Amino acid sequence: MKNEKQTQISEVGEFGLIERLTKNIQIKNESTLKGVGDDAAVLDFKNKQVVVSSDLLTEGIHFNLMYVPLKHLGYKSVVVNLSDIFAMNAVPRQIVVNIALSTKFSVEAVEELYSGVHLACEKYGVDLVGGDTTSSLTGLTLSVTVIGETEKENLVYRSGAKPNDLLCVTGDLGGAYMGLQLLERENEVFKVNENMQPQLQGYDYILERQLKPEARGDIVAAFKKIGIKPTSMIDISDGLSSEIMHLCKNSNTGCNLYEDKIPMDFQTKKMAEELSINPLVAALNGGEDYELLFTISIEDYEKIKNDPDFTVIGHMTNVSEGTNLITNAGSAVPLEAQGWNHGK
Amino acid sequence: MKNEKQTQISEVGEFGLIERLTKNIQIKNESTLKGVGDDAAVLDFKNKQVVVSSDLLTEGIHFNLMYVPLKHLGYKSVVVNLSDIFAMNAVPRQIVVNIALSTKFSVEAVEELYSGVHLACEKYGVDLVGGDTTSSLTGLTLSVTVIGETEKENLVYRSGAKPNDLLCVTGDLGGAYMGLQLLERENEVFKVNENMQPQLQGYDYILERQLKPEARGDIVAAFKKIGIKPTSMIDISDGLSSEIMHLCKNSNTGCNLYEDKIPMDFQTKKMAEELSINPLVAALNGGEDYELLFTISIEDYEKIKNDPDFTVIGHMTNVSEGTNLITNAGSAVPLEAQGWNHGK
Repeated sequence: MKNEKQTQISEVGEFGLIERLTKNIQIKNESTLKGVGDDAAVLDFKNKQVVVSSDLLTEGIHFNLMYVPLKHLGYKSVVVNLSDIFAMNAVPRQIVVNIALSTKFSVEAVEELYSGVHLACEKYGVDLVGGDTTSSLTGLTLSVTVIGETEKENLVYRSGAKPNDLLCVTGDLGGAYMGLQLLERENEVFKVNENMQPQLQGYDYILERQLKPEARGDIVAAFKKIGIKPTSMIDISDGLSSEIMHLCKNSNTGCNLYEDKIPMDFQTKKMAEELSINPLVAALNGGEDYELLFTISIEDYEKIKNDPDFTVIGHMTNVSEGTNLITNAGSAVPLEAQGWNHGK
Repeated sequence: MKNEKQTQISEVGEFGLIERLTKNIQIKNESTLKGVGDDAAVLDFKNKQVVVSSDLLTEGIHFNLMYVPLKHLGYKSVVVNLSDIFAMNAVPRQIVVNIALSTKFSVEAVEELYSGVHLACEKYGVDLVGGDTTSSLTGLTLSVTVIGETEKENLVYRSGAKPNDLLCVTGDLGGAYMGLQLLERENEVFKVNENMQPQLQGYDYILERQLKPEARGDIVAAFKKIGIKPTSMIDISDGLSSEIMHLCKNSNTGCNLYEDKIPMDFQTKKMAEELSINPLVAALNGGEDYELLFTISIEDYEKIKNDPDFTVIGHMTNVSEGTNLITNAGSAVPLEAQGWNHGK
């Protein structure tokens, strides 16, 4: 907390708090006709289609305030929702943010949280148009709803993949999970000895993947530019394995995923080695990478093959062939939604 | 809980739970193109304007599961959001429901909660199109976002009232608050002696106002039928006093509210007397009545004067005259957002 003044929320009241949190909002999107300040926001999407997604984050389950700065939390809670809109090949325009807080939070703490929300809005060109700020008996809960738009013909669902389509992923995987493992290790050390300084050097990338992830709006823009419409798409919030199974189930296909093709950063592998975790597990089941997983028809391969943002990691098959990980040793292991190596 | 079987959520898993909760959903609205099952819902409002509102409810603050049945809670959490859409003179079409639960809740308990959500969707013709079901360390948190639509020219904001407009309210006020007082009294008795049966006879109306409120979609339909467009409107969630001040502030007017005009039910007054509470306080500051407070131009008076759903409770004035309660004794007392008798 940079600001050392701590004002009790009861001193400013609910309406005073809302005014402090929303006074600097400037509307950026044509489709936002009325933001905060009435019973509802008013939007106009004209002839475009509207996409809506929402998530709920609770303290102690989705985040630990021992090592997650409030500003990062505000930023991330917006970004993870934007990611769902990009996964539809659409563009986010508005968000609604609901927050429940216990009395342990000061006005300044809430402002710090909101500074992250505003920063994400700024970066992604999204308008904060409403929300509820209320009390909780314990801890912090955040609910974010995001609204986006696109032309009907641009929308990409989970259900359009066909056998032989290429399975592709953006960026690299497993980093957010390894960043979390590192933060938890250092938090345990800190709990034993408060004078210990956390050992985080050399791991800035995976820490940022965990604490300040970005949503791949740049990819949606790139698709448009290079003239690709994926046949199916989903964002990676729960881990590659689970997301692939969603695509296969919704598209009624199987798939072959190649272990040696899964993109992983050097820091991810190094941290995994340090903690004796198989990095493949981080990629398959770690989650929170917020990369896009999508399928394209084979004819589109030329358009993406030289772009380092994209990696072809497998291909779709007939549903009867199942969903398989082809290991480096060449054997096929069935993927499992809750972890391919579950029960071993 | 009718169903005595108690299944742990961990037995069915997150995806299993979502499937149980959403399997019977049938889409009712043309504007709902795709509901649950992808990264986002897909909606199409064509040339209509879109209104969005959202609320967060937390256990122990907004509801007490000691005396609020889960089905009622699910119902009410939807209704209070629909009320915001009606307050814009619009029609709700879709909702998104996020729920965080601690492990004390069984699958059957969540289904009971959702049965209330589904019942409200059924009654108000709204589609449940998405949401998040997740864990919490303690208690239950519900976040509902509702999306509605109307033609641009129908929208009513808080800001359109003019001096001399009539201030009107639907239904009666203070009932939900007195219902809550009754439930809390009986809960205290029960905590002292578990064998005591609650004394609720003769108070069915105020109990229903608290436990199973309705949103006034019928009024929005009536406005259309009788050809009225209010000059401003808000729903009564925080109490009459606070809502009047919102209309006055947003419209830059003052108002005179007449004590003797405020509609209250017999049960509300009787319970107030029994508990030695001034019923006026229940109406002004109690909240949760979910009636509509609106202003109309004087020329429209003829259209509403014989309708028992509407009561004229005052009129708007120049902003310099302030926001006043004209008491039965004829004196003017300034309204206060946190209660007109605050600090006395």
